[in-house]
Amino acid sequence: MLDDFLESGNKRLDQQLLFTAEIDRMTDVLRRTLLINKSRRENDAEHSWHIAAMAMLFSEYAVQPVDVGRAVQMCVVHDIVEIEAGDTFAYDAQGNLDKAEREQAAADKLFGKLPPDQGKMIRSLWEEFDAMETPDAKFAACMDRIQPFLHNTLTDGHTWGNGRVARGDAEKRAAIVKEFMPEVYRWMEINMDRAVEKGWMAP
Amino acid sequence: MLDDFLESGNKRLDQQLLFTAEIDRMTDVLRRTLLINKSRRENDAEHSWHIAAMAMLFSEYAVQPVDVGRAVQMCVVHDIVEIEAGDTFAYDAQGNLDKAEREQAAADKLFGKLPPDQGKMIRSLWEEFDAMETPDAKFAACMDRIQPFLHNTLTDGHTWGNGRVARGDAEKRAAIVKEFMPEVYRWMEINMDRAVEKGWMAP
Repeated sequence: MLDDFLESGNKRLDQQLLFTAEIDRMTDVLRRTLLINKSRRENDAEHSWHIAAMAMLFSEYAVQPVDVGRAVQMCVVHDIVEIEAGDTFAYDAQGNLDKAEREQAAADKLFGKLPPDQGKMIRSLWEEFDAMETPDAKFAACMDRIQPFLHNTLTDGHTWGNGRVARGDAEKRAAIVKEFMPEVYRWMEINMDRAVEKGWMAP
Repeated sequence: MLDDFLESGNKRLDQQLLFTAEIDRMTDVLRRTLLINKSRRENDAEHSWHIAAMAMLFSEYAVQPVDVGRAVQMCVVHDIVEIEAGDTFAYDAQGNLDKAEREQAAADKLFGKLPPDQGKMIRSLWEEFDAMETPDAKFAACMDRIQPFLHNTLTDGHTWGNGRVARGDAEKRAAIVKEFMPEVYRWMEINMDRAVEKGWMAP
């Protein structure tokens, strides 16, 4: 049925249309984070869009030059594997044990639907993001840390779960921001102090 | 309350954080289009993410060279004004009469929250998109037409409203695809034929 509508007479285009239809499932991958209006949990499509928009605004705080156009694309695709692998909560130690394995299998399955050159292109952007070694990847990773932090500060520390996340955990999670965007990290520190004061986060 | 958490001691950063928080409201702007799984209407954040991802895949069909990194950014910001102006349904003749005016006022309000240089940067990307004159803007506009078309073909022609939209309207809406991405337009024509056959679209 899906395939029926995706027949263009050009196999390559069919694959691209099928992949496009497939990734709409990102709207169905729920994160722990609430939307800022607190109405519901945000999904991966919304989150990816939000950090892509942020990447257009925050590069001036990076300690190394960033290719914004590339970083935005990295933000757009950084969570696609979660369609198959699910969202692994940043503070879930158990779930993070087999995360890499689950995500590699998901990448094989999902990116394998694309024409090989494009599958490789998207996969290598995702792997670069995940390795967090290049400036573009470090910057995109910072966006991926700052956005949920912002949501948490504006939703009474929602995912910090009334103190189940300790300040040390949050600091560890934000270490890449401290390294790569120290000025933004200072704002995070101010709000970590406040979160501890309010009892949202354990000291 | 919001402002409290957005005080970093750096006014420029505060503005960027406030804008970031503000645009999360894109998740609340509902479109007519259904998600492909038919569970609900999609929102502007999801739609913007989806067409940004598409922009990474379809540039090979453009009749002129496209700067993909730039087009992706255009896709990311193309609907932000709808936070204030609301989504105007493509086939709503009445709503489209004062759309430009409503959106200009929205742009003043929203982009005015950013540091002036960045407000100008985002606004000019949005205006370029809207004018549909440059190759990057034509390409981004094509993504903005192809994505809902794909959703419609996969959701029993949902927004075509059982024939309330005629084939001629859909053709007019997709004219930019015909001009700028003729090979993809051929796939659209195949599915317009099918939509008419199925009674989703008036002949």
